[in-house]
Amino acid sequence: MLAEEHIAALKTIGGGDHVSVAESDRSLHSRDQSPHPARLPDIVEDFQVTVQPGLFYKDMNKVLAQHGLFFAPDPGANASLGGMIANNAAGTRTVKYGATRDNVLALEVVLANGGVIRAGCRSVKQSAGYDLTHLFVGSEGTLGLVTEATLKLAPLPEHFSAVTTSFPTTEAAAQAVFNIIGAGLNPAALELLDTATIAAINSAGNFGLPVAPNLFLEFHGISQATLAAELELVRALCEESGCQVFTSGLGREARDRLWEARHHLAEVLFRLHVHQGFLIADVAAPISSYPELVAYANETLRHLDGVHGYIFGHAGDGNMHSTLFFANTAEAYAQVQQEFNDRVVEKAIALGGTCTGEHGVGIGKQKYMAREHGEAALGLMRRLKEFFDPHGILNPGKVVS
Amino acid sequence: MLAEEHIAALKTIGGGDHVSVAESDRSLHSRDQSPHPARLPDIVEDFQVTVQPGLFYKDMNKVLAQHGLFFAPDPGANASLGGMIANNAAGTRTVKYGATRDNVLALEVVLANGGVIRAGCRSVKQSAGYDLTHLFVGSEGTLGLVTEATLKLAPLPEHFSAVTTSFPTTEAAAQAVFNIIGAGLNPAALELLDTATIAAINSAGNFGLPVAPNLFLEFHGISQATLAAELELVRALCEESGCQVFTSGLGREARDRLWEARHHLAEVLFRLHVHQGFLIADVAAPISSYPELVAYANETLRHLDGVHGYIFGHAGDGNMHSTLFFANTAEAYAQVQQEFNDRVVEKAIALGGTCTGEHGVGIGKQKYMAREHGEAALGLMRRLKEFFDPHGILNPGKVVS
Repeated sequence: MLAEEHIAALKTIGGGDHVSVAESDRSLHSRDQSPHPARLPDIVEDFQVTVQPGLFYKDMNKVLAQHGLFFAPDPGANASLGGMIANNAAGTRTVKYGATRDNVLALEVVLANGGVIRAGCRSVKQSAGYDLTHLFVGSEGTLGLVTEATLKLAPLPEHFSAVTTSFPTTEAAAQAVFNIIGAGLNPAALELLDTATIAAINSAGNFGLPVAPNLFLEFHGISQATLAAELELVRALCEESGCQVFTSGLGREARDRLWEARHHLAEVLFRLHVHQGFLIADVAAPISSYPELVAYANETLRHLDGVHGYIFGHAGDGNMHSTLFFANTAEAYAQVQQEFNDRVVEKAIALGGTCTGEHGVGIGKQKYMAREHGEAALGLMRRLKEFFDPHGILNPGKVVS
Repeated sequence: MLAEEHIAALKTIGGGDHVSVAESDRSLHSRDQSPHPARLPDIVEDFQVTVQPGLFYKDMNKVLAQHGLFFAPDPGANASLGGMIANNAAGTRTVKYGATRDNVLALEVVLANGGVIRAGCRSVKQSAGYDLTHLFVGSEGTLGLVTEATLKLAPLPEHFSAVTTSFPTTEAAAQAVFNIIGAGLNPAALELLDTATIAAINSAGNFGLPVAPNLFLEFHGISQATLAAELELVRALCEESGCQVFTSGLGREARDRLWEARHHLAEVLFRLHVHQGFLIADVAAPISSYPELVAYANETLRHLDGVHGYIFGHAGDGNMHSTLFFANTAEAYAQVQQEFNDRVVEKAIALGGTCTGEHGVGIGKQKYMAREHGEAALGLMRRLKEFFDPHGILNPGKVVS
């Protein structure tokens, strides 16, 4: 817990109204929300924007659209930029544009000792000293408090094309993913959704998608001509992997509805399983092992009684999500953790991957940290946490505790 | 200096033959070379390769070409991968493929206390704990000794097109750079070369380039059709900025010669100025300020007596090099430092940029660190150095000392 003088210091830095120690406020913000008031971007120029962390990225992107620009990492939910930076958020656009970490140029950070530093600068190329910026990104607020960030922006694509394509098996779809990435194509989104997930999406939005494993793809191009040439190759690679239905050239309205459905998938699933317990997995593996990882998760799921599972994910970068629903009891949760997530994480790590591609460690995944990093690297992370925050006042109990 | 027991420990880890404390060896390796024997890559798969640091990247890329892959960061000289990682090396390909930092997935690192850690994993998406990998990359060997690295590879482009185009002024060329990047085009190289530099290249290789500021560009495409559409836009954007000669569709041989000339530019310049003193600057700025930075360097150069200067650089990512030749005396060197580099660095930092885009801090740029980062961030870097290396045994005297 913070000492009184630390709280007073925070009030000095952040403004008295922006700092509260009331139980109700602390409870509200104990669930991944940012304590800062929303504020519009300070500066837009130069394919960059300097913002404060309480701004929500969708609100920011509405403003940026007037300049023909957007911040590409796209976690779906309207996250605050502070949350996205703390969490190294990613999403459907990461396969082309990178995760949040790849799109942060500079940070202002308040350290645990009250010092304020500026890490990085506005040049996209930087080699002057230690990379503090990317150490803070993804540290989940445990090393310092981000109070300002300069973000890289991308030009809004003038031309895009969305594709849906279905396959006889999830493995065939995953193989097509590998072929597409391997050919040097550069999708702006490449999502895999298993049969159960497609059925859920159809039920929610009347999409009429073939009830089979599907890929959703999007390409951004500088002209219709480059897009057409790209899509021809995509179709050939999907056909090579046995795709059954291949629908390209979706118009803007159909495309927007498709991504809206993908972004609201979690809500759709929760509506189908009200009052049930749930678990969300977030493993990632090298792309060649993605079919094996998906097959393993499928097989593991098949052996669980009383569980409804959905497998989908940002296939283009090897990230696989699974959302499982089951009886709303602590015992059922513990059992699904043990019989599904522990095994799938073990598999992902054995394939050279990670227990978390984009959701972060928080509390729940700390048990996997030693397995993934080894005791030596985890020990170094623990000592770094101690170095940055000797009194344990920054988001205590998270990442390494 | 290392204690005897540290040297013994290093011999245990690295093998007795690979560790020398002989004066001659230490002198040889005091000049940016790696102490490790070359070794071919251990594993190629998955658009990744796991290598040891003594391997030279050009040698590695020859092997990888058999698999249709390459490691994209391309500093020109045949650097060792250990050196590239230590230095966060970049080059002509960085505008599309990123610097070395962007292409390292995992590292094995020996810490100052003799502990060995593995940082990162083989997934392109990672959010599990602190980003140790990118802290070590670019730390110039001052935080740990990299003994193995897993690198991201890119598919060799099946189709490419190189372009040369000349402009009436350097500022017009720099404006074209801004237009090209702003339009969302994705060049695989975008180099600016001033009139003096073009004259030097012509003299070395009989290129017959118009003796004027030039851009050299390269585009990588998935088909000739996408490339043709892209080049049409490039031509329009260059014409908008007043380009005079625009030559596209260079064949493989002409393209290879062009890049060979660009890569050997430093040697060409040194041959033109044997026995002279020299200074190489490496500033970078946000892309919109690039024309201003180039103009400022030009103007500053014009006021220096007895100096031959060349301005060029990786314009697409805002990186500007200047190579200056002058009388081979300590006084002349100090004067050019003060009257050119100090001023250009000051300008770059004022524009939101950096004293070093890709060459690193080493010894010579430490004097700019406080100006660029502020005392608070520099203090944190110093404490981090102390944390990682309390006895100062890792590349002492570099980055922060």
